[in-house]
Amino acid sequence: MSSRKLQVVSPVPADIDIANSVVPLHISQIAKDLNLDPDHYDLYGKYKAKVLLSVIDELKEGQDGYYVVVGGITPTPLGEGKSTTTVGLCQALGAFLDKKVVTTLRQPSQGPTFGIKGGAAGGGYSQVIPMDEFNLHMTGDIHAITAANNLLAAAIDTRMFHESTQSDKALFNRLCPPNKEGIRTFNDIMFRRLKKLNITKTKPEDLTPEEVNKFARLDIDPDSITWRRVMDVNDRFLRKITVGQGPDEKGMVRETGFDISVASEIMAVLALTTSLSDMRERLGKMVIGNSKAGEPVTADDIGLGGALTVLMKDAINPTLMQTLEGTPVLVHAGPFANIAHGNSSIVADKIALKLVGPGGYVVTEAGFGSDIGTEKFMNIKCRYSGLKPQCAIIVATIRALKMHGGGPQVTAGKPLDHAYVTENVALVEAGCVNLARHIVNTKAYGVNVVVAVNMFSTDTDAEIAAVKNAALGAGAFDAVLCTHHAHGGKGAVDLGIAVQKACENATQPLKFLYPLDISIKEKIEAIARSYGASGVAYSEQAEKQIEMYTKQGFSGLPICMAKTQYSFSDNASAKGAPTGFVLPIRDVRGSIGAGFIYPLVGTMSTMPGLPTRPCFYDIDLDTETGRVKGLS
Amino acid sequence: MSSRKLQVVSPVPADIDIANSVVPLHISQIAKDLNLDPDHYDLYGKYKAKVLLSVIDELKEGQDGYYVVVGGITPTPLGEGKSTTTVGLCQALGAFLDKKVVTTLRQPSQGPTFGIKGGAAGGGYSQVIPMDEFNLHMTGDIHAITAANNLLAAAIDTRMFHESTQSDKALFNRLCPPNKEGIRTFNDIMFRRLKKLNITKTKPEDLTPEEVNKFARLDIDPDSITWRRVMDVNDRFLRKITVGQGPDEKGMVRETGFDISVASEIMAVLALTTSLSDMRERLGKMVIGNSKAGEPVTADDIGLGGALTVLMKDAINPTLMQTLEGTPVLVHAGPFANIAHGNSSIVADKIALKLVGPGGYVVTEAGFGSDIGTEKFMNIKCRYSGLKPQCAIIVATIRALKMHGGGPQVTAGKPLDHAYVTENVALVEAGCVNLARHIVNTKAYGVNVVVAVNMFSTDTDAEIAAVKNAALGAGAFDAVLCTHHAHGGKGAVDLGIAVQKACENATQPLKFLYPLDISIKEKIEAIARSYGASGVAYSEQAEKQIEMYTKQGFSGLPICMAKTQYSFSDNASAKGAPTGFVLPIRDVRGSIGAGFIYPLVGTMSTMPGLPTRPCFYDIDLDTETGRVKGLS
Repeated sequence: MSSRKLQVVSPVPADIDIANSVVPLHISQIAKDLNLDPDHYDLYGKYKAKVLLSVIDELKEGQDGYYVVVGGITPTPLGEGKSTTTVGLCQALGAFLDKKVVTTLRQPSQGPTFGIKGGAAGGGYSQVIPMDEFNLHMTGDIHAITAANNLLAAAIDTRMFHESTQSDKALFNRLCPPNKEGIRTFNDIMFRRLKKLNITKTKPEDLTPEEVNKFARLDIDPDSITWRRVMDVNDRFLRKITVGQGPDEKGMVRETGFDISVASEIMAVLALTTSLSDMRERLGKMVIGNSKAGEPVTADDIGLGGALTVLMKDAINPTLMQTLEGTPVLVHAGPFANIAHGNSSIVADKIALKLVGPGGYVVTEAGFGSDIGTEKFMNIKCRYSGLKPQCAIIVATIRALKMHGGGPQVTAGKPLDHAYVTENVALVEAGCVNLARHIVNTKAYGVNVVVAVNMFSTDTDAEIAAVKNAALGAGAFDAVLCTHHAHGGKGAVDLGIAVQKACENATQPLKFLYPLDISIKEKIEAIARSYGASGVAYSEQAEKQIEMYTKQGFSGLPICMAKTQYSFSDNASAKGAPTGFVLPIRDVRGSIGAGFIYPLVGTMSTMPGLPTRPCFYDIDLDTETGRVKGLS
Repeated sequence: MSSRKLQVVSPVPADIDIANSVVPLHISQIAKDLNLDPDHYDLYGKYKAKVLLSVIDELKEGQDGYYVVVGGITPTPLGEGKSTTTVGLCQALGAFLDKKVVTTLRQPSQGPTFGIKGGAAGGGYSQVIPMDEFNLHMTGDIHAITAANNLLAAAIDTRMFHESTQSDKALFNRLCPPNKEGIRTFNDIMFRRLKKLNITKTKPEDLTPEEVNKFARLDIDPDSITWRRVMDVNDRFLRKITVGQGPDEKGMVRETGFDISVASEIMAVLALTTSLSDMRERLGKMVIGNSKAGEPVTADDIGLGGALTVLMKDAINPTLMQTLEGTPVLVHAGPFANIAHGNSSIVADKIALKLVGPGGYVVTEAGFGSDIGTEKFMNIKCRYSGLKPQCAIIVATIRALKMHGGGPQVTAGKPLDHAYVTENVALVEAGCVNLARHIVNTKAYGVNVVVAVNMFSTDTDAEIAAVKNAALGAGAFDAVLCTHHAHGGKGAVDLGIAVQKACENATQPLKFLYPLDISIKEKIEAIARSYGASGVAYSEQAEKQIEMYTKQGFSGLPICMAKTQYSFSDNASAKGAPTGFVLPIRDVRGSIGAGFIYPLVGTMSTMPGLPTRPCFYDIDLDTETGRVKGLS
């Protein structure tokens, strides 16, 4: 492998300064290390390449490597370093332990980069580079999602508009116009709708007026539309809007709104699809709302399944990048962890597992704490992929454990309380109930659990020993201290060795938390129990939606819980390992094309805002060198 | 040059079938023919590359080639083949006449590809390939514009929101927060605002309360905001919307709307910029509205000039593609011809002119008829670039000339009247008044004018002879028949030879239609006279805006007329060469960063809609081969 020696400086410089201090290898070098020929990928500049999906077919006879998922304990608002640990571990495996390794990561949303959050490429000496290319545009996948999502949205409103002003016959004649010889035909996508309507006729002129009505009039119920527009910008003023106020739209106004692009169902489809033909079917099956008769209306009904696939045809190829130490990274898909499953793509993992082969490692990150991230990784992503991880990592920090032990509130942007920067073993020990529950829940999937303590300079030996004890006591395979933020891969060598042992000693099959063939409510309740809940309370709206999805035939889908990441429960301030609470389900929605039902536990914001002084004030281009400044 | 022999079939197959019948050369081969090293470009897949702007500096000592602009007569709604002629001419020059040649074209808007229009890569045997990559996403430039435009829009609304809820002091403290050592500082972009306000202090604590107020409170007048959001989708329901209706936005609702992305001022900036530092300045200078005191508020005032430049840093590099016959094409920028100047970028032309060198040819297209396209090419684009064309082509068709001679209305989607498919020399002769005025107007810039008659199979020898006579009579350097649609470059060899002679015999300097240092009204009137108008009538709103822009110091900018392309006048049904009319100016707006004032002659739609049966019904992916089907 083309690993690269890092020159580590202390104290650790700013992320962008570290990222800029390293000249990345040409990405064709990284590809070559993975035995990829130039035919296997498309270059996007010098440091990014899209690995073509056809590689899966070519390698299908090969054996998979080990599969490792990185989750975390319930985090503070500052984050506990899951991405950094994921990258650091891979730098250790690839650059120090001489293993074949690929990191698979989500593509970050561009919008928040200009708001509060900054980038998402890891941090310190464990980063994906070039950092600006990772955080901005990358290879255009999110832009493709935005375009596809919004074409569907435009088509919905326009279709309702045209239906409102035209007779069945006029609509039908426009949908199936005569060609030069005066002959009308159905095209491919129309045959999909005919099949759905159980119409077996193949010539437009043979349809009865009733069949013409059923075929041409979607009769969408405006109040049932769940499809919203999206934008990869933090634009809070688009959360709720009224459209159609132009004079040409003849008063057909409607309330709707924009979500951030990564919340689009198309992003969830990209993350869960397994091939081009599978993506075509999932995109066509996406439900945008119901007809007035209560039947689901799909993208294919609107005529768009094919065009959406065309817009997404390059996005399905994962993007190859590299870590600071020259190990390969596949960046692909980034579904919103609030309302979707928050995991990077299945296709990237499949390609990566073949590329590293037996004895190699694919390390992927599951968004949020393991109650959300790892749970969805197992029950949704692995269920659709058929892949099985051997090892799950749980990233913990002394800081977060102290918070769970009863430490004062941790708030982003405010100085940390004294309790967090001086030794307090009792607080750490008390907080380990949170870690313990994450360990027990994760072990139940049949994987070996390794706890990674992401070390801060203020952590003491006694505090770290307390965590290790608690972790092993709760059934962890191992618990290891890491300093990859300060030292790069070298700081995660012990973690790498522990992960190797955990993988080599994995023997159990993957056990899901729930089977698919029970009711929606039974599935929700199984997940709620894993949170520590004593029961579930459904709102009237949730009951109505569960009934509707069941009636429509969608009850066999897995469940993707939309819950706060700051507690096992619905109450973000309930730290530690709460029990006995009743989990409220406010509403239930479906991403039918992607393939899951998502109950809303409380209110989830799907469009962030900008603060008074956004990050963008500091971001500029050095127009002499072309380098990005001020990105953090 | 790596030219490629075309196997021409008759009758001419569908565009997509021709495009798919040719295997493109690897783009690195096209680059090599232009003496570009791999260091000079970034690959985007196998058939596209972004040529890095640094090439301009490297080649600055070299001499330019000939510069040719392609305009047209006033078109029918079917279009008269300007893009096709531009591509066909280059195929002739490169593949048959052994000249170094680069075609520079606009990037088409993706949205309309899914509506009525289909693609914009030329047609028949004169096309840019791969056609699907040209029409969809390309290298992401329009997506970058959308992201940048909408970040600014979000920042405007959010800034007004934060100003409405915070005191001067609170705002100021948030804008200049203390660092870890408790010290407050201004950053680079803040110094730009301080300079604009004539505040020379460098430390936040030194500002007086009055200065704090001026610095921190932009005090934007909501009614003055001209910055709209954009999307590259035909979404008519976004033409007029109300934003801010979410509960968290506290009732700060506002009416606004979306334009199609290519109508963004950022697109016009991209087309007119000359370097990274110039782009940084133009983006920062964009005016989004006025303060309540009537002062223009810019992107830099909002803190965004730098971040917008970062989002646009790759978009400034033109995209190299190829024609069906393997000649090079630079695709770059596509400002909306309705409200902007409708020409591809200055930087692509500058790079291309150096790459072809003396004796080589750069052929570019100017959107719409030459009354709009060529006029803006000369008075706006060439004024900013300092480049001078030697030859201007005017594309004419017998069909359009018959329409100008009094033929029946031509409507897209309806069969052509008998008059257009049978010989009628008198109708053609009568219509040549339109051609003649375009010739006279274009010649006035000091270029040699070559008329290209884009031949249809129904055109007769006598009709073509009539056009040639009229063209030469009006002062054209030459008039040539072309059949590049049916025959590729071979069908435009005569045109190529005529263009060569015209360039070699060009002697005059470039003469602008108006100087910059006269008033806005005098400039508008000079352009109106070139249309045949006897005068100009300003609405009250137009008068008010002219007064405002003059007061704000923007009267020295060139004028970009927003007028119908279907007539020299404001009345689309006034064919031929109307005179004596009074040109109405309904409103006057500014693209201050891009660098022009644009008067609105009538109402311009800036967001297209979808028809009842959009093109997208036919577009699908062959999931076996990965090929796009049904794109036209």
